[in-house]
Amino acid sequence: MSAVACCAPLGAAVLSDDEAAATAGLFRALADPARVRIVNVLATSDGPVCVCNLTEPLGLTQPTVSHHMKKLLDAGLVEREQRGKWAYFSLTGEAFTTLARVADLKGAS
Amino acid sequence: MSAVACCAPLGAAVLSDDEAAATAGLFRALADPARVRIVNVLATSDGPVCVCNLTEPLGLTQPTVSHHMKKLLDAGLVEREQRGKWAYFSLTGEAFTTLARVADLKGAS
Repeated sequence: MSAVACCAPLGAAVLSDDEAAATAGLFRALADPARVRIVNVLATSDGPVCVCNLTEPLGLTQPTVSHHMKKLLDAGLVEREQRGKWAYFSLTGEAFTTLARVADLKGAS
Repeated sequence: MSAVACCAPLGAAVLSDDEAAATAGLFRALADPARVRIVNVLATSDGPVCVCNLTEPLGLTQPTVSHHMKKLLDAGLVEREQRGKWAYFSLTGEAFTTLARVADLKGAS
């Protein structure tokens, strides 16, 4: 997802087909209760979270968590860091600004 | 979608399963390029928009527009008003506040 295409607010004065598709893709990445919970855990954590600490609170198997993480990574919402055998995840800086912008119906861009 | 359940920010300190499902449902309503474009048209219009004026700019048939409108209505993002033979649509007041809140990763609630 390109930084330009992904950031068009819902209220943008002009919205191209590519921008609409990118915006829909971002919402699609969050259109799942498990991914909403994962993003919530990351948003409320002080630092990167080990994938090994996500399975139990979410009640999900590790392959399922990995599947959801891939969607969030592809959308540019999270980033991954390898520490020994474990992957650690955190929200990207862009996640904060992009989400707030895209959800802006007044298009103050 | 209840007003309470639908409004939990992604960054909420505590997020129940019901709230996560409702938040995911709201994002799902916007996880389609056509619905992003419809919301964009409504957000940038001065008043309610006739469904008859949506088909051409979006390049969609009227049944397809109606299908997407149903999803947006169910999510509480748009409201419908009948004027003679035509339905007119506008964004709900809640759409503005709910979207901004839900997309809030800092959970300032």
